[in-house]
Amino acid sequence: MADSVALDRQALAERAGAAMYERDVAARAAGIELVEVGPGHARMCMRVRGDMVNGHAIAHGAFIFMLADTCFAYACNSSNAVSVAQTASITYVSPGKQGERLAAEARAAVQAGRTGVYDVRVTGDDGRTVALFRGVSQRLRNEEVVPGLGIAD
Amino acid sequence: MADSVALDRQALAERAGAAMYERDVAARAAGIELVEVGPGHARMCMRVRGDMVNGHAIAHGAFIFMLADTCFAYACNSSNAVSVAQTASITYVSPGKQGERLAAEARAAVQAGRTGVYDVRVTGDDGRTVALFRGVSQRLRNEEVVPGLGIAD
Amino acid sequence: MADSVALDRQALAERAGAAMYERDVAARAAGIELVEVGPGHARMCMRVRGDMVNGHAIAHGAFIFMLADTCFAYACNSSNAVSVAQTASITYVSPGKQGERLAAEARAAVQAGRTGVYDVRVTGDDGRTVALFRGVSQRLRNEEVVPGLGIAD
Amino acid sequence: MADSVALDRQALAERAGAAMYERDVAARAAGIELVEVGPGHARMCMRVRGDMVNGHAIAHGAFIFMLADTCFAYACNSSNAVSVAQTASITYVSPGKQGERLAAEARAAVQAGRTGVYDVRVTGDDGRTVALFRGVSQRLRNEEVVPGLGIAD
Repeated sequence: MADSVALDRQALAERAGAAMYERDVAARAAGIELVEVGPGHARMCMRVRGDMVNGHAIAHGAFIFMLADTCFAYACNSSNAVSVAQTASITYVSPGKQGERLAAEARAAVQAGRTGVYDVRVTGDDGRTVALFRGVSQRLRNEEVVPGLGIAD
Repeated sequence: MADSVALDRQALAERAGAAMYERDVAARAAGIELVEVGPGHARMCMRVRGDMVNGHAIAHGAFIFMLADTCFAYACNSSNAVSVAQTASITYVSPGKQGERLAAEARAAVQAGRTGVYDVRVTGDDGRTVALFRGVSQRLRNEEVVPGLGIAD
Repeated sequence: MADSVALDRQALAERAGAAMYERDVAARAAGIELVEVGPGHARMCMRVRGDMVNGHAIAHGAFIFMLADTCFAYACNSSNAVSVAQTASITYVSPGKQGERLAAEARAAVQAGRTGVYDVRVTGDDGRTVALFRGVSQRLRNEEVVPGLGIAD
Repeated sequence: MADSVALDRQALAERAGAAMYERDVAARAAGIELVEVGPGHARMCMRVRGDMVNGHAIAHGAFIFMLADTCFAYACNSSNAVSVAQTASITYVSPGKQGERLAAEARAAVQAGRTGVYDVRVTGDDGRTVALFRGVSQRLRNEEVVPGLGIAD
């Protein structure tokens, strides 16, 4: 049944995401919160702290990348198959400001065999686009994020 | 005289780099060291700490990006003209390991008018390539990294 | 009125697209057809001819790029402001086959000031994704695709 | 002996390149000439014809991409292992002009296992940089460009 499969995939994505977040020291240190994860997608947010800005109270690009990259990782591992980033690119559209809460949303553009392409949009408090990220992932063979739960599709 | 211009450019790059590093809280917090900066190029290094790895003692891609991106920033600001990243891409070639000291070297592939393209190679302890990064920068008009020193070329 | 503005923008996009296609010798030589153009988006198609394949009856990547790039160009010029590509990237997902009719669809991911990011998906006869393309464009100041018609937003 | 291996690799690259060019209908149709090929590198050139420009006598980006992409293909297949492009990106720096002879030079930035990253610079008649291209390739397992000649490293 399609509905039950969808439910299983959602549950699988949540289990994989929770396991990843549990050991993701770096994401937690950056204050990145996991808002939502589902099959092929994820949403996260991060407040731009004083230690994430340069001299002009503008967020360092690397922290915007970190937020987007983390969101990408959870989306591309949501089937419980361990996936690694191969290439990633980011275009900066508008500066992130100190104190601002940035939101990231990742979606699979395609997952074809072991190769996936995921797009992430980072937005600011006012909804403007701060950055656009695209990541290409490769699934490793037969490795599960949470061992024993199986892999979706 | 070419030599004296070269010397001036080197001195300018060093002054701009020192000023950037002085206020670069994020780079210092990540333990990124500025090894060398000159006209259109920079070298930096960073040890992969325990808070920079995922569950498998493998460096988070975002920290490798941060090292490369920082090195790019110093190279593209080395003429003392304030430059900002517009797009950046990274290809991961080999994992970085916990405890390993990663080195990054950035070089201008081209600086044509206000647009620059800079390539950064990140290498591991054993000299293997860990990642290749390419950044595209835009110079802002008439803004100096260290006000009053002027802008090279 | 929103509807009338939408109508104007649609008409403007069609006028700009028609003018571009009129002088686009290269697109016509490659048999690229303009299926649809509207504000921030475009759709095109192209049959993979015998002179577009390599020795294995697989479409040359450069022709897939040409289709995607052309679709991007029409989408990012659809406001009648002359825009040029600054960077573009493509990820090949599945080979295009000789004789196959490839379809491309371009959409604005963001148009913020003079900078735009456009995503193009190229699909095959069976709907599978053949390639994903992302282009970054810059609008030139005060240059219209069709002089005298004005520029939207 | 290092010299003899270097010689063998050079001969292998030339044999692979000649075989590719023989069946490369598209490159020959675009007037792309193979100037030189060696282990991990290649040089090509192409004149910007009247059917390769837009309305302003400026070369279509897709033809600049085609030249760079072709050069990349010969460089990444120079070990006689069949390699395919996975992602490619291009940054346009200066327009190519009608009648101008563009030159492309591709070099391996890294070839690590089956994954390669190759950089291509496209230059104009006057030596200025027209575009910078970066391609990521994957070697197929056990497939030779010229069957029976073997694969270098």
